Amino acid sequence: MVTGHVFIATSLDGFIAKPDGDIEWLISRDDPNEDHGYNDFIKTIDGIIMGRRTFEKALTFDSWFYTVPVIVLSKTLSESDVPEHLRNKVQVSNLSPRNLMSQLEKGGWKRVYIDGGQTIQSFLRENLITDLVITTVPVLIGEGLRLFGSLTDDISLILTKTRAFPSGLVQSEYKVCK
Amino acid sequence: MVTGHVFIATSLDGFIAKPDGDIEWLISRDDPNEDHGYNDFIKTIDGIIMGRRTFEKALTFDSWFYTVPVIVLSKTLSESDVPEHLRNKVQVSNLSPRNLMSQLEKGGWKRVYIDGGQTIQSFLRENLITDLVITTVPVLIGEGLRLFGSLTDDISLILTKTRAFPSGLVQSEYKVCK
Repeated sequence: MVTGHVFIATSLDGFIAKPDGDIEWLISRDDPNEDHGYNDFIKTIDGIIMGRRTFEKALTFDSWFYTVPVIVLSKTLSESDVPEHLRNKVQVSNLSPRNLMSQLEKGGWKRVYIDGGQTIQSFLRENLITDLVITTVPVLIGEGLRLFGSLTDDISLILTKTRAFPSGLVQSEYKVCK
Repeated sequence: MVTGHVFIATSLDGFIAKPDGDIEWLISRDDPNEDHGYNDFIKTIDGIIMGRRTFEKALTFDSWFYTVPVIVLSKTLSESDVPEHLRNKVQVSNLSPRNLMSQLEKGGWKRVYIDGGQTIQSFLRENLITDLVITTVPVLIGEGLRLFGSLTDDISLILTKTRAFPSGLVQSEYKVCK
């Protein structure tokens, strides 16, 4: 079965970006000399599912950041919204989370990186997340885009690892109880 | 100067209680054989400031939990709302956070435990919190009373300690940058 995996940073008060998408509060506290495990994580991943907002943020960076195939989950975007130079790297899908995962499984994918607050929330609600690596940044930003959202039931987690970095980042890994 | 200190547990998605105040999700994951440091913390504290909701929750427990003086910050309660057997342990105040802290300082208090979401939020906004011990419970509950709230400015924190417990609780200690 194809599995969904989260690897994301959040402020201590649970935001992944300011209301306008700004992540300066995160970047300014990220010591590039610290290895937070992203490269090791991404090596295990067949591709990324992200929402429209995360995709649009990624388009603002100087160069395309992702080294694995990206699927943008959106009901409003279409393939024509993907810049031409990215069309071999980015697809758009309007499938439901479950149907998209089934399609990817048929395509041979095993491990999918689920990115972006809304997308993570919808995959959690559908019980499509296997584990989460949450890196907490030592700052309160007060408002913004939330990592987590409403649920129909509590989701129990099992802590598998915690480590603190000299920068003050705390990274905890959780498995979702099935 | 009198200083404010937070020691609180939160779900991974940032709630300190369900919408109705329920904390069964917390109690059921709290291993009483684990020492999370509350007793050592409370020994350093001259008294507690809490909000009405936290006070009303504390009144539902079988016996009065707190071993130090409690001040309930409320604009609606008065001394007559304090049960008679607690009147030597609990006071009600409608002072502003800053004025209350000044009053306590004149009374010789040095370290005050600030408890409850709304109360912690208002003291953070007034820059009256020196440090926070946040214990994260491995569960997502989806909705409820939030630990943190809106701010006028970002609040930078310095991580001073992190430890993980076999139960899956992760406790991080932060100093507030002044």
